[in-house]
Amino acid sequence: MSSAVSPLAPTVFPAMPEIEGVRLGTAAAGIRYKGRTDVLLATLAEGTTVAGVFTTSKCPSAPVEWCRDHLKGKAARALVVNSGNANAFTGKTGRQATALTAAIAAKALGCRPDEVFLASTGVIGEPLDATKFDGVLGTLAREATPGHWHDAARAIMTTDTFPKIATATVRLGKATVTINGMAKGAGMIAPDMATMLSFVFTDAPIAAPALQALLKAGVGSTFNAVTIDGDTSTSDTLLAFATGAAARRGAPRISRASDPRLKAFTRAFNQVLATLAEQVARDGEGARKLVEVVVEGATTDAAARRIAMSIANSPLVKTAIAGEDANWGRVVMAVGKAGQPADRDKLSISFNGIRVAHKGARDPAYDEAKVSEAMTRPEIQIKVALGLGKGRDRVLTCDLTKEYVAINGDYRS
Amino acid sequence: MSSAVSPLAPTVFPAMPEIEGVRLGTAAAGIRYKGRTDVLLATLAEGTTVAGVFTTSKCPSAPVEWCRDHLKGKAARALVVNSGNANAFTGKTGRQATALTAAIAAKALGCRPDEVFLASTGVIGEPLDATKFDGVLGTLAREATPGHWHDAARAIMTTDTFPKIATATVRLGKATVTINGMAKGAGMIAPDMATMLSFVFTDAPIAAPALQALLKAGVGSTFNAVTIDGDTSTSDTLLAFATGAAARRGAPRISRASDPRLKAFTRAFNQVLATLAEQVARDGEGARKLVEVVVEGATTDAAARRIAMSIANSPLVKTAIAGEDANWGRVVMAVGKAGQPADRDKLSISFNGIRVAHKGARDPAYDEAKVSEAMTRPEIQIKVALGLGKGRDRVLTCDLTKEYVAINGDYRS
Repeated sequence: MSSAVSPLAPTVFPAMPEIEGVRLGTAAAGIRYKGRTDVLLATLAEGTTVAGVFTTSKCPSAPVEWCRDHLKGKAARALVVNSGNANAFTGKTGRQATALTAAIAAKALGCRPDEVFLASTGVIGEPLDATKFDGVLGTLAREATPGHWHDAARAIMTTDTFPKIATATVRLGKATVTINGMAKGAGMIAPDMATMLSFVFTDAPIAAPALQALLKAGVGSTFNAVTIDGDTSTSDTLLAFATGAAARRGAPRISRASDPRLKAFTRAFNQVLATLAEQVARDGEGARKLVEVVVEGATTDAAARRIAMSIANSPLVKTAIAGEDANWGRVVMAVGKAGQPADRDKLSISFNGIRVAHKGARDPAYDEAKVSEAMTRPEIQIKVALGLGKGRDRVLTCDLTKEYVAINGDYRS
Repeated sequence: MSSAVSPLAPTVFPAMPEIEGVRLGTAAAGIRYKGRTDVLLATLAEGTTVAGVFTTSKCPSAPVEWCRDHLKGKAARALVVNSGNANAFTGKTGRQATALTAAIAAKALGCRPDEVFLASTGVIGEPLDATKFDGVLGTLAREATPGHWHDAARAIMTTDTFPKIATATVRLGKATVTINGMAKGAGMIAPDMATMLSFVFTDAPIAAPALQALLKAGVGSTFNAVTIDGDTSTSDTLLAFATGAAARRGAPRISRASDPRLKAFTRAFNQVLATLAEQVARDGEGARKLVEVVVEGATTDAAARRIAMSIANSPLVKTAIAGEDANWGRVVMAVGKAGQPADRDKLSISFNGIRVAHKGARDPAYDEAKVSEAMTRPEIQIKVALGLGKGRDRVLTCDLTKEYVAINGDYRS
């Protein structure tokens, strides 16, 4: 694990307000490393609804299967997250570990096991010893407090160099409601979805189906538009919890995502997702540059997404950015290999607003010195105009550095 | 450019016999670097047939378009290859450069421009000054000789650390015929196709349509089964030329690829393609390990190919191999993200013949020390048994090292 904080980390972390109905506690359960905080318990008030979006992997982790199975209950009383071990590809033992963890948490909180949601991150293929949660979760259930959002975000980190948090407050009817989110993920990040773990909490009273619709609509341009290395985790999990506590302060109960009263909330909710997703890109393993890829003029938005992802996942584009080289030839290559409609002779490419290629050839006004200067900045925008239609998209990624190789070349050791 | 030869390079290079009807010449035309051999002319006897397979990029280079257009003539008298400049994404100028190059070669050889085949490799987006070929090609046309295969292979290199050549001799009817091939490519290598440039020559008398069918069938398990970085070049070109000179020695004229007399030839031809493709993987930029990914028990061969490519292109798998870490969790991840049918609980994974995972969990007999020892070898086989059907496939790749990032982080400078 790298210890230096990413140079792209936010310089200011927001103060995180409390959310009525949510209490947090963290502990060191010794899952993988001794003395490292590695378990988070979030307790949720009675009446909390839940929604979730998960990895598309055909080999999902045991906790992902657990959560998928129990979303249909629509109710959540606890979230247990551990780092250090992903409980993925652990066979029957893995399923037993999830059941045992949920049972321990349920006993500690006096709820049903199917109201306990789980997420695990870390090494794949190692059996998770869930008995380590025994005692720990009981203590946490008693001692959890409404604050400690930073500590919670820190407890779920693996190769992350900084904790990822975001918050928003917004009016819902006559009440002010809060949305708090946290995320972890720095590698093995690719759609769908683009984070390993993220959890969003609100006190707004939103029914589970509406929350699910909101979450599904929100991930498209946020978590699903981030890629670090094109590798999709077996554990990707995004869960949203709505305690509904704001109903007592006059917030209307929302049963449909299309409810017009939810407009401002939806915007704020998506903003929280976008902020968390951007932080994931900013903490890309070994990243020195945040890269925004904008594709416009594609035949469709879906084609634009494919082309943007082809650019964002190209090792040659990413190493060029690491080398501060405006190598638009490699961008052309990545456009060409995406398999989507593209006409070489209509293509324009810009780096940080400076057009380097136009109509299928180098821009006549190309000025190497000017472009080189722009490439030294920590934030790089690659913009591709295809000139074919109105399809557009935007994805975030980071550069590919030797540090990425170093981090991943000896992660297990 | 890296100067050290890949540790995976073949230790013995074959002696390359002459091929009747083929003469080779190389020169330094100063395309990009002064004093570096950067142009290859192959002259081809009258009656030579030609076949080709090219990049699937939607933004192909000007020479790729030139070759595609002129394959229909079925006849070739010359091949001109330059390194240093890919003549890709060079707009109208690029098309003019190909036409001018062909005209210069045609004049030097006394043939038609449409009998001249072209390939360029190197930087994308820089205009290629074809006037530099003037004079050079005339001299080469006069001085070309039947030998010099090693020099020819060396002339077309860019970031390659060794020239790639292969040869086979085989009976066709009563005659012995020869197949010689050369290739270049070390990065931006991915199907389809998996090399930037490769040229295969034979004196067998094979009609163009039969040669085309042979080539198309041959690339599937050879060049299209190699990936270095998942990036597909705009210039990928594989051309095959058959001078037919062996007809005078009694070789039968072949008009169909399915001709039973072509059986041994086809095997030898595919072996040449396979040897060249493997050398490309062995020269992967920064490579320290040759990695063979074998997938079996998939629902179909196509599904096996997708899964094998997902593994072979995964940065996390490739960095793990670089770190000599038998991180089969990442292999599970790559299987899972391939989007093909897979059942976690039926999966088995081996590294160099040692089974590490079985039926969705760590192999009970797993011995870390034994596996770690196996991972220190320069050649690593990752085998995945899906347990679903009879689909199988094999692809070659290499590890992802800091050296890859170094090579590609400052290629243009």
